[in-house]
Amino acid sequence: LLIALLTDFGPGSVFVGQVKAVLENLCPGVRTLDLCHDIEPGEPLEIVGEGAFLLERSVRYFPQRTVFLCVVDPGVGTARRVLFAEVDGRSFVGPDNGLLAPVIDAGAEVRVTSVEDVRLHLSPRSETFHGRDVFAPLAAHVAMGRRPEGRMLDPADLVRLDAPPAGASRGTVRKIDRWGNLLTDVVPDDGRGRIDRVIVGGRPVAGFVRTFGVARAGEPFITRGGLGTIEVACRDASASAALGIGRGAPVEVIYQPREVRSIS
Amino acid sequence: LLIALLTDFGPGSVFVGQVKAVLENLCPGVRTLDLCHDIEPGEPLEIVGEGAFLLERSVRYFPQRTVFLCVVDPGVGTARRVLFAEVDGRSFVGPDNGLLAPVIDAGAEVRVTSVEDVRLHLSPRSETFHGRDVFAPLAAHVAMGRRPEGRMLDPADLVRLDAPPAGASRGTVRKIDRWGNLLTDVVPDDGRGRIDRVIVGGRPVAGFVRTFGVARAGEPFITRGGLGTIEVACRDASASAALGIGRGAPVEVIYQPREVRSIS
Amino acid sequence: LLIALLTDFGPGSVFVGQVKAVLENLCPGVRTLDLCHDIEPGEPLEIVGEGAFLLERSVRYFPQRTVFLCVVDPGVGTARRVLFAEVDGRSFVGPDNGLLAPVIDAGAEVRVTSVEDVRLHLSPRSETFHGRDVFAPLAAHVAMGRRPEGRMLDPADLVRLDAPPAGASRGTVRKIDRWGNLLTDVVPDDGRGRIDRVIVGGRPVAGFVRTFGVARAGEPFITRGGLGTIEVACRDASASAALGIGRGAPVEVIYQPREVRSIS
Repeated sequence: LLIALLTDFGPGSVFVGQVKAVLENLCPGVRTLDLCHDIEPGEPLEIVGEGAFLLERSVRYFPQRTVFLCVVDPGVGTARRVLFAEVDGRSFVGPDNGLLAPVIDAGAEVRVTSVEDVRLHLSPRSETFHGRDVFAPLAAHVAMGRRPEGRMLDPADLVRLDAPPAGASRGTVRKIDRWGNLLTDVVPDDGRGRIDRVIVGGRPVAGFVRTFGVARAGEPFITRGGLGTIEVACRDASASAALGIGRGAPVEVIYQPREVRSIS
Repeated sequence: LLIALLTDFGPGSVFVGQVKAVLENLCPGVRTLDLCHDIEPGEPLEIVGEGAFLLERSVRYFPQRTVFLCVVDPGVGTARRVLFAEVDGRSFVGPDNGLLAPVIDAGAEVRVTSVEDVRLHLSPRSETFHGRDVFAPLAAHVAMGRRPEGRMLDPADLVRLDAPPAGASRGTVRKIDRWGNLLTDVVPDDGRGRIDRVIVGGRPVAGFVRTFGVARAGEPFITRGGLGTIEVACRDASASAALGIGRGAPVEVIYQPREVRSIS
Repeated sequence: LLIALLTDFGPGSVFVGQVKAVLENLCPGVRTLDLCHDIEPGEPLEIVGEGAFLLERSVRYFPQRTVFLCVVDPGVGTARRVLFAEVDGRSFVGPDNGLLAPVIDAGAEVRVTSVEDVRLHLSPRSETFHGRDVFAPLAAHVAMGRRPEGRMLDPADLVRLDAPPAGASRGTVRKIDRWGNLLTDVVPDDGRGRIDRVIVGGRPVAGFVRTFGVARAGEPFITRGGLGTIEVACRDASASAALGIGRGAPVEVIYQPREVRSIS
């Protein structure tokens, strides 16, 4: 019985604290795991995009039967749907704004419901904090082994953000981490050989390096980051500051041409 | 058996870590819940005021029998009293500097003790970190079902900060949240009808909006925030930066005049 | 069964979240305690030095049998060794870069192993995130009561940073805390009497004060900080900003001369 929390409420914030209080109140003894709370404020598409990216890159490390409470919800209080998704044995609760879509799209066995049962909501219900008053009670309900009532949805009808299909070489800078690394959503395609360079926000960066400690200090380089995707980094410095590039920038990965083997 | 922690030690800081280590050491297996650790440094009255506000707005979401370990304590090591308060089935440990006063004042069944039993303190005891050496051992003691010895206090004799009585229309900006919203301690009085405008730090803001997603981007507005109080916000931007107003600013809420129903 | 986490991954970051997911997956129901995640980015020697300092100052507060998962690892993916250390009943997992050395050096019963068993690693294993793929599985293994195979090391052969021996009066500013206090690694030597002044980063600071609340606002002073070491602070302000001094600066503590008792 584990509820993983992904929000943009800020580490150590009272908003996370109140959500956990509600979970504990409804589901005494529940265990929670803070997956991520440090998504930076910004444009709605960028914050939801970062949340969706981090969620999709993390789910594989969690046990089966984990319940994910996902609240990156700039549209709180508006008409966006409240989703309950079951994906390959794990459960997800969150708004229908693109946050859950990459996980759902990557799943084999998928069942998605739009939950409209207001009896689960806290009363009174705030219109500006559904994380506490709508999503947390729903996650507690699910964690107790109940399945919320709702309307079945065709996954094709969910709200989606731009996300690169498997094998794509174009994508987006989804996160600037605390060291200033640019984390993209492009998974390197090992079948295509060595990476020659990337174009990120219009700027070329060359030189793939296996890990930070073998790079030259102060010079941006390409690596495969901890989330398994292409990352542009700078040893002991911020690549974001060095390149002047932030979250949301487009990225293209260019592989080295294969040698042509001539028969003659 | 749950200890909720409210401090200004900073998220992920070693100070929170050491407090939790002490709790675990004295009370093996204890469960803790991080209510809040991100109160920003600043003037003592403002940081205690923020802590008092966040605590009072959060207690209702917690189970009965929760123990609250509250350490926002700029007077650490000076003569301020160490409080143990029982309020409607919940327990609170913290300094007598105004931090616990709003919760105590809102309680029905209240019992407050000044704890002077130094046998509970860690030894050696730091004079600059009573959160770990004085308050944590006291909270562990309480969590184990013991009642610390001390001198009964009349709640009227506690240190108090300015806090608006129920129904007041004047108050204070208690917190700037991570999005730059101004969180005030004024609870809207629905019996008085619609809010016309607020004056915050001398600046008028008009226009009450139900939630963020229906506001105009870049224009400050009034809403009822997630903590149930009047909030001045700015969609996708910082209201604090836009208005040049920070924590501690005075706020007044002005309601629309009622229509006069004439009989003729 | 408790795993304490010390990292520089950032509070509330997805990197901490993924590490905890791996621990939960390998060791269902494991309890974790966040000792520290907020070490600021910077020079490798400074970030490892801060981690080593915070760890050594914290271990005493933890129960016996705690497992410490310590990942401040700028050399991730390079040839540095992976350590498993047993020190006086507690266990430590981390890179051989100086992070564990002060704890090991302070121990009475010590046993250190270089762990080379790749069967414990997650597969696939990232070259840039060994916290998740190498150290977390190792900590889970240890938490389950198993002892990893490896090569016994002589503690004298470990990588060491500069750390002051007990009784030394010279050391280093190891951390700037969130209030701007300068935390040094010099433990005051009470046997030498009163502290007269410190020289920190070449600047003299005079005046030892017992705790913050009795200092003059705005004037840097010396105190014994919460971690038990000499600290340079400034009431209600940042000593680091006031003095222009940051992490890594050298510090010297100068005691008052003893009165000479003449016989005549």
